[in-house]
This record gives sequence, structure tokens and C-alpha cells, in this order.
Amino acid sequence: MSPLAVPPDAPFGAANLPYGVFTTPGDPRRRIGVAYGEHVLDAGAAALAAGAPADLAALLAAPSLNPLLAAGRPAWSRVREALTEWLTGARHRAAVEPLLLPRADLELHLPFEVADYADFYASEAHAANVGRIFRPGADPLPANWRHLPVGYHGRAGTVVVSGTPVVRPCGQRREQGADAPSFGPSRRLDFEAELGFVVGVPSERGSRVPLAEADAHVFGVCLLNDWSARDVQAWEYVPLGPFLGKSFATSLSPWVVPLDALAHARTAPPPRDPRPLPYLDDTGAEPPAGLDIALEVRINGHLVSRPPFSTMYWTYAQMTAHLTANGAGLRTGDLFGSGTVSGPARGTRGALIELAWNGAEPLELPDGTTRSYLLDGDEVAISATAPGPDGARIALGEVSGRILPAR
Amino acid sequence: MSPLAVPPDAPFGAANLPYGVFTTPGDPRRRIGVAYGEHVLDAGAAALAAGAPADLAALLAAPSLNPLLAAGRPAWSRVREALTEWLTGARHRAAVEPLLLPRADLELHLPFEVADYADFYASEAHAANVGRIFRPGADPLPANWRHLPVGYHGRAGTVVVSGTPVVRPCGQRREQGADAPSFGPSRRLDFEAELGFVVGVPSERGSRVPLAEADAHVFGVCLLNDWSARDVQAWEYVPLGPFLGKSFATSLSPWVVPLDALAHARTAPPPRDPRPLPYLDDTGAEPPAGLDIALEVRINGHLVSRPPFSTMYWTYAQMTAHLTANGAGLRTGDLFGSGTVSGPARGTRGALIELAWNGAEPLELPDGTTRSYLLDGDEVAISATAPGPDGARIALGEVSGRILPAR
Repeated sequence: MSPLAVPPDAPFGAANLPYGVFTTPGDPRRRIGVAYGEHVLDAGAAALAAGAPADLAALLAAPSLNPLLAAGRPAWSRVREALTEWLTGARHRAAVEPLLLPRADLELHLPFEVADYADFYASEAHAANVGRIFRPGADPLPANWRHLPVGYHGRAGTVVVSGTPVVRPCGQRREQGADAPSFGPSRRLDFEAELGFVVGVPSERGSRVPLAEADAHVFGVCLLNDWSARDVQAWEYVPLGPFLGKSFATSLSPWVVPLDALAHARTAPPPRDPRPLPYLDDTGAEPPAGLDIALEVRINGHLVSRPPFSTMYWTYAQMTAHLTANGAGLRTGDLFGSGTVSGPARGTRGALIELAWNGAEPLELPDGTTRSYLLDGDEVAISATAPGPDGARIALGEVSGRILPAR
Repeated sequence: MSPLAVPPDAPFGAANLPYGVFTTPGDPRRRIGVAYGEHVLDAGAAALAAGAPADLAALLAAPSLNPLLAAGRPAWSRVREALTEWLTGARHRAAVEPLLLPRADLELHLPFEVADYADFYASEAHAANVGRIFRPGADPLPANWRHLPVGYHGRAGTVVVSGTPVVRPCGQRREQGADAPSFGPSRRLDFEAELGFVVGVPSERGSRVPLAEADAHVFGVCLLNDWSARDVQAWEYVPLGPFLGKSFATSLSPWVVPLDALAHARTAPPPRDPRPLPYLDDTGAEPPAGLDIALEVRINGHLVSRPPFSTMYWTYAQMTAHLTANGAGLRTGDLFGSGTVSGPARGTRGALIELAWNGAEPLELPDGTTRSYLLDGDEVAISATAPGPDGARIALGEVSGRILPAR
């Protein structure tokens, strides 16, 4: 069967067309690929074969997505239209068909060079659960939480692509009741299921990006696992926030799904109380920037949670407006995470600390074992789908990683 | 007089030789320069003129310091020896002399591409002062402070070179006693006088850099101003740390002084109690990693503080070991700040919040005006010197910036 015979309602069908970067076993050159069915289109070669205009072909001939990201929304639309024609039209069929490579044969790499990595904390259920666990008796949400998307900067240099093993980090942690900390492998290693938003077009330092212009800057969406050593984090985070409890690794899915593919996923965000300050007030914004994306988290293949992104309090547009509210510039390749996606129900929580309530209610896996935190050898895989046209669902792919013992 | 006639005890004499990146008014190509007296050596051109080996010449012909940073300590030593010979020997005098350009005629740029930017909090006096101001009645130092160098990640994309104007940031801030925040220009804009350490050689993700190997990775030192909007920071920083209160701008001096030039500045760090955990324990380390660098802070030309770097509790070697203790990799161009340098005496505090005690004791300037925080139009300049050979002092240059009104 031709690799071009992909049903329109396939998870990686013509309504999706996410971008990644691949190599083949015999060729170390990094190339841009577009996932289509069970195959990946060598996009740079396809542009040549289809006689695409030189400027467009150059964007697809790069070794990372950065030039395409920087090119801006009109170019993003042209490239997407061209890909759609090459993959679904009759005209270039013979030229393009041999450029579809079986996905299983390829190695996928980090799709872009990460500039700055920031991470938000935008799920009300997650923030409230963490508050209840760490600050029992106090108001579960910090005073600022409903007024702004709380966030922090993370380490861009340790963002890794899905499949990269994660060595259990060492660090300082203080046992409950102990006076002094000790140093050693984290005993409370966790995952955080998130979406990551990829910035394409820079913004000028000193100026702000208004809510309504977020889509001129944000290119698309990945899945992100913000691995967290809870014991290291708990000891270090006062007063300057998470540092080594997070910076050992952050895993990213290999496919960047463009916002253009998520038109059917847009949904109104939850009601906010109090009404946000004007620079964050998205009342009546069209299209809305909430996204009805359904995540799934598996540990060693067992489904443990179904976090619903539609419940997130703050949207990517609000995060963009907030990130730049002080005049901080955006750069091509900036990545910002949503924060852990947790819904209100237990089976929808996006981190083990919540699912097992910091060890008080260990999670039972179908194989009879339990987890308070991750064990060496555990593999965490986060996947997601979103509504596509005509009731179909498009896939965001997967971000996975296996825990290796501490060195 | 020949530009080569620089006395050996000059601040930018042969014992210093810091690296920067410049352009000339007529030529937009970025070139590596080495400050010497009142001039700057066009280092790439000098390497060609002196017939330097190709590998060494290539490091100096780059448009940023990154290739030199990545080359490692043996290469750093060879380059420094070659520069010393070109500038102080007789052999290349005629060839090199015309390649010394008057410093005042050049534009200086960010000397390297910043990879990740982290910032520490390593001054005991600063941390204790901030604790007394924000948490009166409580222990001024957080429980973890004497056990680890507290730090956080900042925004690499908004690190700017000295001289770049700083637009007063806007943000959310909550007035004392108010229920809800408002949005507008920061009313408590501050500076923080710091040293910045520049990482040259990467480290492998998953492995740690021991204390004793810090010098194989750290190339040199800059001056850094970690501009801070205290009102924005105070409202946002619980629980994930500083974010928009810092990310609008961080200013860096144009000259990177190599560790090799600071051999005479090395000094024993202050005694620590309790003794640090083994991975941070530098007892008896030779040479010591404390640095006897004397900073000066000026507002509109008026000297307001003389922060002594020798009082810092944690050294750059401990910061390097801590930053990688969880297996986080270093990259070429990583930059980490020391945190505000404050000594125990009032006239040695490195931030306005301490000098004016959060507005309770406004700072009087010699021109008759007072400052609780920075006003539009204020220029902050931080300079520093360090002991050189034979009682001379070498200069670290200056990092300056002027506040522009909010947009």
C-alpha cells in the first residue's frame, strides 16, 4: 500500500502534519520531517522534488526547525499548504511517494534549539493539591495564583528529546525531623505531565506582546515531562524557587504540532474569579485560547492518569502576555511549559505526588506493584490527542523516558 | 606614544588581558578584542600578522568568544601566552602596533552567546539583610542557606551588554494593605552588584563536576548587574521564585577577565559553620577559590558602595559543583551570577534595598538628592579591581546602565 494512503481521520493524517527532526541509520545529517500516517516525509527533499519556491525550500532544508519558527505565520501557512498539496494532491504524487520513510526506522532528535525555557503552574487542581500536601491548614493556593500565571525559568540546556534515559539525580535532601541535610540519590523522583509551547517569532526587548498577538509568536505545541526530584526541591526552593530539583532533565516530544492543526481543539477556558487585570483579560477573545487536549500518562505501559488540558486556568496566550509584560523579549526557540496538567478527579492528576498523595496513598499498578514515587527502571510515557475535523482526533505523539539508577 | 607603551602596573596591562567583542564605526563585523592600556588589540588580525598556528588563529577570528571558551584550559593558556608575546615582546612589535585601536572609538558587544543563566545568593550579609527586611522576627537566613549555595535560573535572552539602556519594567505589584494587585511601572526598581562567571568547557549530562575540576570548566569573570523590580518580585515570588521581577534585563560588562589573570586575587573564603557536605567541602583547597575583588557602585557618578567580594560565603567552585550535583550538564556560554555582593558594613552593601533599608533610610547622594529606589534617568555603574602582581591592581572594567521611563 502506498505510504500516501493515509485515511483523513488518522491520528497523523492530513489534518495534523507535525514537524520534527530526524536522522536515518546510514546518514547523520539532521533533516526536517513531517509525520504522516506511519511514515515521515523528508520535507527538505520533498520541497526540491516538488519544485517549491527557494525561500520555502530553504526553511525545510535546515537541520532544525529554527528557521521555519522564525519565519512567521504567513510563511507557516504557506509551508502547511504546500505540504498538504504534496501529500494529498495528485500532482506531485510520484515525486513525493519515495520520500516517505517508515517512522520506525528513524531516529528523532530535539526538533529545535531551545532558547529560554520557562515553566508555569497553570492548573488550579495541581496548585491546590501541592498546597494541601506541603502547607496543610493554609490556603492551598498562594495569594497571587488567581491574579497571574505563576512561573519560573528552568534550564534550557537539559531539555532532552523523548526516549532519552533519565539518570536518577543526586542532591541534598533533609529527612523529616532531621536537623541537617544529607546528599544522595533522590528518593522522591516524580514526573509532571505538561504541554510545552514553542515560540517562533521574537519580540522586541522593552515591548509587550498583547494577548491578541500571541498567535503571531507561538508556533505550536509539544508534550513535556518536567521530571522533579521532590525531596531536593522541598529543601532548596525557599526563597528562590525550584533549581536542582528540576534542572537535571526535562523531556520533550519529538513532534511540534502547529497551532494551525489545533483549530478544532480551541475551547473557552474556565471562568476566572477575580477577573484578570486588563493585560490578562481574555473575556470574549475569539478564537479562545483554551485547548481541549486529552493527555494520558502511562507507567511501564499501565495507564495511570488522563489529565484534561481543557481545565487549565491560564492559557498559552495569557502566559505569552505575562512573560513579556515586563518588557522581556521572546526569542525563536523559547519554550514554555504549562505546568502539571491535573484535573479535579484523582484519575486525572498529572504527577505522582498527587496521584499517591506524597506517599500516603500509594498508586496500585495492574501488575500488583505500587508506587509512591518512581523506581529505577520505570518508564513514564505521556501521550495526547486533540479534536480534529469531522469528529476525528489528531495525535500529539508521545514523550517518554526511563529512569536509570543514580551514578 | 606607542599604544604598546603600557606600564606593567596599568589596570589593563599585560597582567590582565581581558577578552571582549567589538565593532568599529565603519565595519559591522564582530571581532574579538583584548583590552590593553587605552587600546584594544584586534586579536584575530594580530594572530594572522604574527603568523600564529591556524588552530589558535581560528579561535581569535570568531565573531564571539564561544569557540575560545569551548577550547579548554590548555588552549586558553596558549592563547594568553601568545597575546603576552605579541604585546610585550619585540618580535611582532611592528606587525601588532597598528592593530591596537583606541578603545573610545569602538562599540563593545555581548562577548559571548549566553547559554543558560543562573544566579546565586552567596553573600551572607545580603541574604540576612533581605531576610530582616522581608521576614522581620524570623531567622534572617533560610534553613538551607548555610548548607548549599541557593540559586535559581534566570532569562538568558535578556542579558545585555553594559551601556544598554534599561526600560523601567511594568508588572503586577500589590500595595501594602491592598487586597488586589494593580499593573503599572515598577516603583521599587533596584540594582544588584554581582560577579558573573563564564563557563567555557561543557560537562556531560548525568555526571558531576567535582570542586577540584571547576577550573577546567570556568573560563573567567565579568561584572553583572541583576536589575530587580522589588515590588513585582515581592508579589510573584511565592512559591516558584523570582521571574518577571528580574527577567526584563541583566547587564554584563564587556570584558571577560580570565581566571588566569586573577591568580593574585585568590584568597581563603570565610570560615563555614556547619562544615559543608563533602561535595561542597573546600577545606584546604589549593589554590583557594575565594576572590579578593573590590567592587564599587556609583549612581550618577557618585560612589555609593564598596562591596568586598572576599566576604562571599560560597565560591564559584562550590557554585559549579552544586549546579552539576544533580547531573545537569554545563554548556559553553553558561553564565552564573554570584548574587548581590554585600559586606557587613552599610557602605559595602550591593543593592539599594539594603543601602536604603527598603526606603526606611533613604540614601543621600552628594548632589543633595535622596534615593529609596532608582529614578528614571539614573545611571548605575559597577566597577571592580583585583590584586595583580607586585602590588598592582588589575581592572575588571565596568557594567553600567541608565533607566529609561516605562513605555
